[in-house]
Amino acid sequence: MSDPIQYAKHHEEAHLLELVEFLRIPSVSTQPEHKSDVADAARWLAQKMEAAGLEHVEVFATSGHPLVYGDWLHAGVNYPTVLIYGHYDVQPAEPFDLWQTPPFDPIVRDDYLVARGSSDDKGQVYIHIKAVEAYLQDGGKLPVNVKFIIEGEEESGGASLQAFIPENKALLAADVALVSDTAIVNKDQPAIVYGLRGNIYTFLDITGPGRDLHSGSFGGGIDNPLNVLGHIIAKLKDENGKILIPGFYDKVRPLSEEEREILAHFPLDEEGWLREAGAPQAWGEPDYTLVERLGARPTLDVHGIIGGYTGPGGKTVLPSHVHAKISMRLVPDQDPEEIARLYRDYIYEIAPPTVTVELRMRGGAPASITDFNIPAMKAAAAAYAQVFGREPVFMREGGSIPVVSQFQQFLGLETVLMGFGLPDDKIHAPNEQFYLPNFYRGIQTSIRFLAEYGELDS
Amino acid sequence: MSDPIQYAKHHEEAHLLELVEFLRIPSVSTQPEHKSDVADAARWLAQKMEAAGLEHVEVFATSGHPLVYGDWLHAGVNYPTVLIYGHYDVQPAEPFDLWQTPPFDPIVRDDYLVARGSSDDKGQVYIHIKAVEAYLQDGGKLPVNVKFIIEGEEESGGASLQAFIPENKALLAADVALVSDTAIVNKDQPAIVYGLRGNIYTFLDITGPGRDLHSGSFGGGIDNPLNVLGHIIAKLKDENGKILIPGFYDKVRPLSEEEREILAHFPLDEEGWLREAGAPQAWGEPDYTLVERLGARPTLDVHGIIGGYTGPGGKTVLPSHVHAKISMRLVPDQDPEEIARLYRDYIYEIAPPTVTVELRMRGGAPASITDFNIPAMKAAAAAYAQVFGREPVFMREGGSIPVVSQFQQFLGLETVLMGFGLPDDKIHAPNEQFYLPNFYRGIQTSIRFLAEYGELDS
Repeated sequence: MSDPIQYAKHHEEAHLLELVEFLRIPSVSTQPEHKSDVADAARWLAQKMEAAGLEHVEVFATSGHPLVYGDWLHAGVNYPTVLIYGHYDVQPAEPFDLWQTPPFDPIVRDDYLVARGSSDDKGQVYIHIKAVEAYLQDGGKLPVNVKFIIEGEEESGGASLQAFIPENKALLAADVALVSDTAIVNKDQPAIVYGLRGNIYTFLDITGPGRDLHSGSFGGGIDNPLNVLGHIIAKLKDENGKILIPGFYDKVRPLSEEEREILAHFPLDEEGWLREAGAPQAWGEPDYTLVERLGARPTLDVHGIIGGYTGPGGKTVLPSHVHAKISMRLVPDQDPEEIARLYRDYIYEIAPPTVTVELRMRGGAPASITDFNIPAMKAAAAAYAQVFGREPVFMREGGSIPVVSQFQQFLGLETVLMGFGLPDDKIHAPNEQFYLPNFYRGIQTSIRFLAEYGELDS
Repeated sequence: MSDPIQYAKHHEEAHLLELVEFLRIPSVSTQPEHKSDVADAARWLAQKMEAAGLEHVEVFATSGHPLVYGDWLHAGVNYPTVLIYGHYDVQPAEPFDLWQTPPFDPIVRDDYLVARGSSDDKGQVYIHIKAVEAYLQDGGKLPVNVKFIIEGEEESGGASLQAFIPENKALLAADVALVSDTAIVNKDQPAIVYGLRGNIYTFLDITGPGRDLHSGSFGGGIDNPLNVLGHIIAKLKDENGKILIPGFYDKVRPLSEEEREILAHFPLDEEGWLREAGAPQAWGEPDYTLVERLGARPTLDVHGIIGGYTGPGGKTVLPSHVHAKISMRLVPDQDPEEIARLYRDYIYEIAPPTVTVELRMRGGAPASITDFNIPAMKAAAAAYAQVFGREPVFMREGGSIPVVSQFQQFLGLETVLMGFGLPDDKIHAPNEQFYLPNFYRGIQTSIRFLAEYGELDS
């Protein structure tokens, strides 16, 4: 009799070596110089999916980076279909000098696999390919039908998949979506994310004088775009975290007493969390708990500013130009397009006539919430409990996975967010890592989930 | 009979070629990679001063960049001594891509000599060396005693000269100081600057989390140093140009009705000035005229900001750190040390406890005002009138020449600011230029000044 769990356990070293190979490919989707690396990662993944036993494996070219598809649809019509999503692209590795080891040269240190993309999301998406392999290479069949759609633009807006989904509804049709791109509470406490924040990301360019001027000769007579940016930032969000864009909170769904109660019981280790962040103290809206602020409240952050003279020493310029990257995290039921409109109107209202302002919007996604009584959620909870020996907790996650709302909108799918990362994985930061024992437990959890879901929903 | 004016006219091409040679040396004092270029410029200058006929020429080593000294002291005890100051270092040339021609490859375009340092200050300081040469090579003597002190750190704080002056009072002893490091009104309208703003220059570093965090996971729970910087900037100066540091204006000497009257008659071509600045409109304190705001009112400007992710595309980081360069221009009777203290106290008062702030001060200088009835001022006015055919106007200049207040403090000298630059010389910016006809007229004006001063003060 076939035993995919045993198969997975016997192949742990092989699976690790494959993941290392995957992580060696610097598939940074936002940086044009890595375009061919991103394509290499797609091809590599497609080969591994075929080797796992998936069928109809195809690398779809797009106007951006490729999409990788594969399926196995022989479970029978009485069995549900799971659409498994992940992304093979990674965040930029900058600043390189803060990495203790090269970001694309994976090493194992104290049970952690250290590399850009190890947790977000190559390590997590690869879990499900190995789970499928365990079934197909061991017993030749899966307990449910499975489709994979893996994108290469998650870290750069996801435009190609956004265009692909509405045009390929039949190809992607399923009963539920499964995504592993989130973190659990700690090494031994699994968690299922039932809510995700949405977001909009924007680029703000402010130009004052036509060139950098001498600040002695012109200072006092010409407005300074860096000073203007300071005033704009101060007018976007107050010092307690309240966003000042008129109408911004109008559609925010208030937290119910029941949900505040659930979130109050979430076992966040505030001290460890703060140590992990390395900040002097926690911060945020005084009327909400830390757990609420991190997952259930909208935010606005400036991600980068560059303008004027930034070299060594000083230069007394009244600078011509400054560039800022600003995004907002959204919660149900804020509409990204409406928020983008409110933001744009407000920026143009508060920008003084002494400068010119250019605002560019780079995509956005609404927040999402999944009902935790659907069969796939129950199957996920059971699978976690079997492998980790502990019931998962339910949580809201502060990050955005835009595709979750697209699955809802175009395919009518609810999404199960089955995470295997840890809060201190340093995703989007130097020294990103993935806790290796949970890579292996992840594969087993995925195996259990597919079996449980096949039983519950057949 | 000797005629230094004729000598100067006959040597215009030779003087131009020497200045071009001077401008080819990229003596950027703030950038460590140019340290040997700065030393080369000092040596080059010393050779030219000896060739001109100056004596005791010496390149003084310092802990920073060298000082170049030379004198001619044979006019006799009944004649006054002029201390001529200038600087042979230049501003950084960045951003290089905005230069139409390489910054250290001088070209002549439409009567303008285009190169970094052409106006600020190599072209202007070289005028006086050529004037002295005209006297000494032609007739063998000068109408007054002359000392030169030329520094290589004017654009980087001037610490070495600041240390040198109090330790070399006898060497530098004189009756008046002469500085050409300012602009006149337009090509044909000379101007004498009787007031200079002082300044303090500061570096502000704000650190929040210990590393760049994922803004989805941590946003709402950890304060963002870029947002904090925005609030700090907004609290330093309001949108109308009023500086909000408590006590900042306490020592500002109010403008007298008489001085406001003089400044009201200053022939500023506001339209041309704004076109030169290339900004959508003028800006500043509503209760003061543009001329007053540019020279007689203090300012605060942010010169550069860099922090967070500034590469192509977007990155959703809650950044760890931001660096800002901020300076203030001061007017009589603000004390730079007191202002620095008020600024520091205020920054630490307004910075929230959710971040750590590091503030570094990089020198400063008080503002200065020269009495326009002293003989050297009258000599300067007469010299301008003879060469330009028009009486000079008196003005306050917005920039800072820190050495002017040190000459006052340690040597008891008033300074004549005899400028030959133009407002559109683009000093501190790409495509810096110097109007060549005024280079030649400058040499003649310096020649006339030395003669007039010898007569008036003997």
